[in-house]
Amino acid sequence: MTIATRSEHDLIGDRDVPLEAYWGVHTLRALENFPITGIPIGTSPFLVEALAAVKEAAAAANHDLGLLDDERYNAIRQACEEIRSGELRDEFIVDVIQGGAGTSTNMNANEVIANRALELMGHKKGDYHVIHPNEHVNLSQSTNDVYPTAVKIAIILATHALLDAMAVLEASFAAKADEFHDVLKMGRTQLQDAVPMTLGQEFRTYSLMISEDRSRLSEAVLLLHEINLGATAIGTQLNAPAGYVPSACEHLSRITGLPLESAVDLIEATQDCGAFVQLSGTLKRVAVKLSKICNDLRLLSSGPRAGFNEINLPAVQAGSSIMPGKVNPVIPEVVNQVAFQVIGHDVTVTMAAEGGQLQLNAFEPVICYSLSAGISRLREAILVLASRCVDGITANVELLRSEVENSIGLVTALNPYIGYSAATDVAQEALATGRGVAEIVLERGLLPPEKLEAILRPETLAHLAPKRSKLEEPAG
Amino acid sequence: MTIATRSEHDLIGDRDVPLEAYWGVHTLRALENFPITGIPIGTSPFLVEALAAVKEAAAAANHDLGLLDDERYNAIRQACEEIRSGELRDEFIVDVIQGGAGTSTNMNANEVIANRALELMGHKKGDYHVIHPNEHVNLSQSTNDVYPTAVKIAIILATHALLDAMAVLEASFAAKADEFHDVLKMGRTQLQDAVPMTLGQEFRTYSLMISEDRSRLSEAVLLLHEINLGATAIGTQLNAPAGYVPSACEHLSRITGLPLESAVDLIEATQDCGAFVQLSGTLKRVAVKLSKICNDLRLLSSGPRAGFNEINLPAVQAGSSIMPGKVNPVIPEVVNQVAFQVIGHDVTVTMAAEGGQLQLNAFEPVICYSLSAGISRLREAILVLASRCVDGITANVELLRSEVENSIGLVTALNPYIGYSAATDVAQEALATGRGVAEIVLERGLLPPEKLEAILRPETLAHLAPKRSKLEEPAG
Amino acid sequence: MTIATRSEHDLIGDRDVPLEAYWGVHTLRALENFPITGIPIGTSPFLVEALAAVKEAAAAANHDLGLLDDERYNAIRQACEEIRSGELRDEFIVDVIQGGAGTSTNMNANEVIANRALELMGHKKGDYHVIHPNEHVNLSQSTNDVYPTAVKIAIILATHALLDAMAVLEASFAAKADEFHDVLKMGRTQLQDAVPMTLGQEFRTYSLMISEDRSRLSEAVLLLHEINLGATAIGTQLNAPAGYVPSACEHLSRITGLPLESAVDLIEATQDCGAFVQLSGTLKRVAVKLSKICNDLRLLSSGPRAGFNEINLPAVQAGSSIMPGKVNPVIPEVVNQVAFQVIGHDVTVTMAAEGGQLQLNAFEPVICYSLSAGISRLREAILVLASRCVDGITANVELLRSEVENSIGLVTALNPYIGYSAATDVAQEALATGRGVAEIVLERGLLPPEKLEAILRPETLAHLAPKRSKLEEPAG
Amino acid sequence: MTIATRSEHDLIGDRDVPLEAYWGVHTLRALENFPITGIPIGTSPFLVEALAAVKEAAAAANHDLGLLDDERYNAIRQACEEIRSGELRDEFIVDVIQGGAGTSTNMNANEVIANRALELMGHKKGDYHVIHPNEHVNLSQSTNDVYPTAVKIAIILATHALLDAMAVLEASFAAKADEFHDVLKMGRTQLQDAVPMTLGQEFRTYSLMISEDRSRLSEAVLLLHEINLGATAIGTQLNAPAGYVPSACEHLSRITGLPLESAVDLIEATQDCGAFVQLSGTLKRVAVKLSKICNDLRLLSSGPRAGFNEINLPAVQAGSSIMPGKVNPVIPEVVNQVAFQVIGHDVTVTMAAEGGQLQLNAFEPVICYSLSAGISRLREAILVLASRCVDGITANVELLRSEVENSIGLVTALNPYIGYSAATDVAQEALATGRGVAEIVLERGLLPPEKLEAILRPETLAHLAPKRSKLEEPAG
Repeated sequence: MTIATRSEHDLIGDRDVPLEAYWGVHTLRALENFPITGIPIGTSPFLVEALAAVKEAAAAANHDLGLLDDERYNAIRQACEEIRSGELRDEFIVDVIQGGAGTSTNMNANEVIANRALELMGHKKGDYHVIHPNEHVNLSQSTNDVYPTAVKIAIILATHALLDAMAVLEASFAAKADEFHDVLKMGRTQLQDAVPMTLGQEFRTYSLMISEDRSRLSEAVLLLHEINLGATAIGTQLNAPAGYVPSACEHLSRITGLPLESAVDLIEATQDCGAFVQLSGTLKRVAVKLSKICNDLRLLSSGPRAGFNEINLPAVQAGSSIMPGKVNPVIPEVVNQVAFQVIGHDVTVTMAAEGGQLQLNAFEPVICYSLSAGISRLREAILVLASRCVDGITANVELLRSEVENSIGLVTALNPYIGYSAATDVAQEALATGRGVAEIVLERGLLPPEKLEAILRPETLAHLAPKRSKLEEPAG
Repeated sequence: MTIATRSEHDLIGDRDVPLEAYWGVHTLRALENFPITGIPIGTSPFLVEALAAVKEAAAAANHDLGLLDDERYNAIRQACEEIRSGELRDEFIVDVIQGGAGTSTNMNANEVIANRALELMGHKKGDYHVIHPNEHVNLSQSTNDVYPTAVKIAIILATHALLDAMAVLEASFAAKADEFHDVLKMGRTQLQDAVPMTLGQEFRTYSLMISEDRSRLSEAVLLLHEINLGATAIGTQLNAPAGYVPSACEHLSRITGLPLESAVDLIEATQDCGAFVQLSGTLKRVAVKLSKICNDLRLLSSGPRAGFNEINLPAVQAGSSIMPGKVNPVIPEVVNQVAFQVIGHDVTVTMAAEGGQLQLNAFEPVICYSLSAGISRLREAILVLASRCVDGITANVELLRSEVENSIGLVTALNPYIGYSAATDVAQEALATGRGVAEIVLERGLLPPEKLEAILRPETLAHLAPKRSKLEEPAG
Repeated sequence: MTIATRSEHDLIGDRDVPLEAYWGVHTLRALENFPITGIPIGTSPFLVEALAAVKEAAAAANHDLGLLDDERYNAIRQACEEIRSGELRDEFIVDVIQGGAGTSTNMNANEVIANRALELMGHKKGDYHVIHPNEHVNLSQSTNDVYPTAVKIAIILATHALLDAMAVLEASFAAKADEFHDVLKMGRTQLQDAVPMTLGQEFRTYSLMISEDRSRLSEAVLLLHEINLGATAIGTQLNAPAGYVPSACEHLSRITGLPLESAVDLIEATQDCGAFVQLSGTLKRVAVKLSKICNDLRLLSSGPRAGFNEINLPAVQAGSSIMPGKVNPVIPEVVNQVAFQVIGHDVTVTMAAEGGQLQLNAFEPVICYSLSAGISRLREAILVLASRCVDGITANVELLRSEVENSIGLVTALNPYIGYSAATDVAQEALATGRGVAEIVLERGLLPPEKLEAILRPETLAHLAPKRSKLEEPAG
Repeated sequence: MTIATRSEHDLIGDRDVPLEAYWGVHTLRALENFPITGIPIGTSPFLVEALAAVKEAAAAANHDLGLLDDERYNAIRQACEEIRSGELRDEFIVDVIQGGAGTSTNMNANEVIANRALELMGHKKGDYHVIHPNEHVNLSQSTNDVYPTAVKIAIILATHALLDAMAVLEASFAAKADEFHDVLKMGRTQLQDAVPMTLGQEFRTYSLMISEDRSRLSEAVLLLHEINLGATAIGTQLNAPAGYVPSACEHLSRITGLPLESAVDLIEATQDCGAFVQLSGTLKRVAVKLSKICNDLRLLSSGPRAGFNEINLPAVQAGSSIMPGKVNPVIPEVVNQVAFQVIGHDVTVTMAAEGGQLQLNAFEPVICYSLSAGISRLREAILVLASRCVDGITANVELLRSEVENSIGLVTALNPYIGYSAATDVAQEALATGRGVAEIVLERGLLPPEKLEAILRPETLAHLAPKRSKLEEPAG
């Protein structure tokens, strides 16, 4: 069977493309040049949506400025709207990792939009004299302003979804903090028994950590709202007509519903990857905290008999193919792994940003992919952590209380009354003999019983601090 | 439309799975627990192939030892053979990133093999009393020995493919080194003109770098041939019958054609990720060199008019959506980006390895994925670099020669004759006046003309060193 | 010769310390336990200063609350003041890398302050019944609140110094941007000639990048102003009397002149390293930009004959031990290397933060050292870059202009007039023949001469964008 | 007070240097240009020693080839010998982080050697017409061959010291493995109780890990024995006379006692950092394993009452400034931190290697410093870990045994007798009721008592595997 084709032309020469394809010769070249991951850009819905939004905004600005007639504009606009609503996703086929600073992604979009617009106007695909991918769809644009702008919008949208997921996890931890408000336990420093606290305080901490990370991430994503649309090739606005920059930005804000702003210095904005590096660093922070929390959850639930055994994670699958009845902390484990990926991606983004030269960073595709994949995986991992793990955690209240009662760490509370040196002696005897601290203090006559009892009251020991930081407020 | 289902049971309870699915309840749980990347393990052909090989080897050993009857063994063996030949790949659906140290991958394989074997025996899927995923397919095994063994085999196979690709690139550079053998040019240190060399020498270097990396990678992959099959849960061989370890290893060597060996200390082998870390570090080395080479290629081809313009990379696509006729080094650029990914993956692997605790590393899935994706992408990038870039490089011979003739760096060759101090004076005058070094030397009467000419003969200046290192020999 | 000693006692037993030493047995143990880098904490002036400030604030709060009598308070206060003014630095001898979450650093400070205070009161060193390192100097404190608080203050002070240095570099680049305002040159994307711009625009970009980084760093350092002083061991304030937390914070703000705030949730604050991770990520951003700028400076000054040769970096030393007259970009090179260190430190900080467990991060010493060393080195590198490189840069104006005139990239400006396809043909002919774009356009009759001249006017081509971003404003 | 000075001259102009200084004007420039870390190269004894060895070997080769007369040779040789024996270390004052690809380090050595040789010949310092730093001491050399060669030798020597330390730690773990040979305990996977093993097996694993790492490190350091001495500026041997390369290498092997070899392709060898990257990756592997081991030690010794409490680390200092009697795992903690540094350094080395351009890597100083500091710190940390932690570890034998007896994991051993499904039921009941596995099995009549007892015999459960891997043998 032969596939019907049409012939297209580019700088290199002529090539046949499938007659039914909305993409054209530039996309075909890219497909052949970059068979890297097998992951097409069409699998990144936010990116395709953002590309169509940028193209629609550019067409609207060109139309306003009299550079694009009504008929072409309407056809292009409608094609973009369809793509934004989820259509033609299978036509976005270039690999997520590609050379050319995003040119192939931009040309894939230009070609699909041109051919769909041609179709809407009643023309055949490939009739580029009517609507040309470069001369009409890409009018007043360069990959170097279109692509970074689309990437920023895609990442903003993805980050909003991540922030929503983080709020869910924050609420899950907060609910557990309330539930465990009165559950007394030993706090630990350096994995050694320290002084008493409550399990509620422990879980409140996790809730606050997520909350602060939401704040930081909300700040970092704001920086992405500064775009360079209209900068064209290097930021000098060459070939962008007067008035185009503000008009395109305004249309894009309208279409996306995002408060975008044009960078005041478009040359700087065109080559600078600072906002991506900042976001990546903040995602790494989120990953570090999540990983730390999951490490704690796995540790606190270790056992059931030869471990801490303080809390129970819900069983979500059989744990072992050989050890019957074993239940493993598989959900925290998968979150740890996603965190390690995000931390690795940060190094990738760092190197890509550092490698940019002169007026453009040619490595934005790998920056885009690293950030997008990281954000998406963090979101999925966080939602699973909330719903399949945290929400179902239970506490082994009796065991936790007995740990406090048997603890040598109680002696710390006696410092102000018997002094650090005497307290050290008591601690050493308790450790050597296995006896309780209170018993030894009383035996040695260091404190009267009623005084000792008052000092060791749980409410006193585990001082509560319910409110949150002023400096690191949660995201709106 | 309702899908016909069958009911299956696990530790958590009963669940319906599609009647036609070869996978079962454990796979279903994993699917729900780990919706992380959307990339199923079935997209990693080497991993699925390796899993089936391990299962077949285990079954053969169990059969030899009398633990598995002929009928069951034959059915399991045939199911594994089918999978190794590429069938049923769509049944391997758990996410590449998963908690549980690979248990879900192992159970996915156990279930698919059990059900296919049942089918081959004329039974219905789910008739686990005849062939049970755990009790027959997983017999004498644990995820903790099966999964690392399969991962090692998968990575060995993938690395062999990468090594082949590297040999292609090495040959491409070597061919160019021969082609440019006599092309004189200026060598540079710290981006400043240094002393003369040939373009052939420059490309020979790239060929040798790839060759040395092949050697290092060949060594690193050898370490993966040490497996822990038969270690079971923690390396104590609990539930693996006497004789199983050597038998399973022998069968697996036969099936895969690889010279595998059982680790002498199976406890150490079960928890140790050293071989993966070593391989990852070596892949990073490959990435660093490739990235350096691509940086050079991009620099040497910079221009065409306001750059080095020493070599021309073949045009493989139009370079710009706005700048007509621009041709960009898109192939080296995509290789750089893959290198940045591999370097980032190395950090991921490092953290995952460091995070392992006690008798097992729970994070091997992300190690496996990071290595596999990196190896595969390196391979694709290298092949594209060879065929779509290096093979088509041409040199601007005249410009290169004129650089040498105009160079101030020639003065270095006069050191032994006129001394460093006098040579410095000549260089400073040449730089200040724009005149040539030879002219000034003659004018100052520092050397007689014939002597000067002899010193500055190209063959003398660019001493050739054709042979390669003894210490870092190329891979067989 | 024997050194006179005094005997001191701790949990482990008795030990002799030099009679003249202000430090005591705890410091001695640490010295023996941590012979890691040979770099004592006394080499970090900001850290010693911050420790003394925290101890003075704690003593003041204890005095206010009636826990410390006038005489002891005055002696402790005076000892702290002396240390803050630079005295006794040689007594801070524990290694910068140490186990124990900073306990040894805290005890080193407690012992030095106690012994100096004893001396001021007319007692002998070691008379701890009068002033005890733990019971008086460390009163109401734990390493776990003192150490992180001191680290934060030290890093705030260091960062302020870094911000000042960045402002110097920003001004250097801005001055050069003004100086090169009218110098026309070719802009480049992907190292290929793109479209015209001015050298002033190029340097303005560097100025703006530094400016934006200052803003980000100023924001990140704000997060460090939230302290956990008074949290004691795990954040429950055990042994800190009522009123201590606000009083100590207020005194510390007064002493340091910094607007510090107590964290609202002291348990979260005691274990969370988020602010350090955020700062580290932002330092990495600074490093990435600096490295990118230095890469550009090295590239633009490459040559002098076989390179870009657009700008000249001042010669600050002979470049080569063998190549006479060679001048190398040694200042940008050292800045690159510092950037690579800061990026590496970020991975160290990330791993240390991720490794924290439960109520405390035991790895804060390496976090502190990594950040401090990075900040200090960045500062030195930046000042050297400004004064010994950027300030002395000159431009090769004629060569830059001729690049523009010969450029094929000029054809881009003709797109709106002759179309992308026709422009591509012109570019291809120019490249193939070595002829000029204007010449070919006129020959082909594509545009009338006066129109062509108007389009290619330098002022038009290099559109200026003098103002800076609203979103990323420079630091106050 | 005025310091007596002498005047020296370089490319930039004239400068006074202290009359007594052995270093000269090039060193002075470097001191002013690179005030980065404040750490002079003189603090790296191996590097200074290696530099002197290289200079001595070059002088010997020059002497052999008739380029250096007896008197000058003898003076230079003696100066080098003195430096190698530890003299004049304070004269090596340039910063460890420097631009210029090591030129300043090389010139610092050239100047110190020239002036000391002058002194030995009875001349004044600065009489460079007699012995000139460049024309005599640096004869036939370039920084670009001298510096990498010296760095390689320095790192070889440092690594040998590290390997010795690793052997000590390996032996410490092996001794504990013997001591704990019969101590039964629960093995754990994913922090959940798994199946029984012995504490001896656990410590044997650590010993083997160190052993394998020694093998890998021994292999990696071998690659550094390939040197480029005689390559001069870019590898073309310009200005190195015929016969110099083999002669210099032979002399250097003799002087250092190391089996050095000349690289066959000196151009490749001059720009390639592969061997450094490989070593760095291997050091990272060592760091990962050490960190994992220390994580385990901290976990196994957690408690004493609310933790695993399986082993006791020796108390080496008081653990807390507030919690009396608390003993913390400070030695493993400091080892973790050194590991994090080494892992961070690997990223620094990676970026520095990737950033090399064309015929030279300008960033070798930061590679040298990162490797040297990492190797030295690893060595110190490992020795402390052996002597102050591992050697003193004791086991809580009774508690360990009771964990096994109470364990649900015992049920795994019953799989082959009662099947996975029945075993799962027993495990679930044991977990729900807190009863023992054996009790339930007997109650249910699943196995006769004598059979059950035989299966659960400790010797059976914890199968021993004493020998080590064939593939990863320990270093000679």
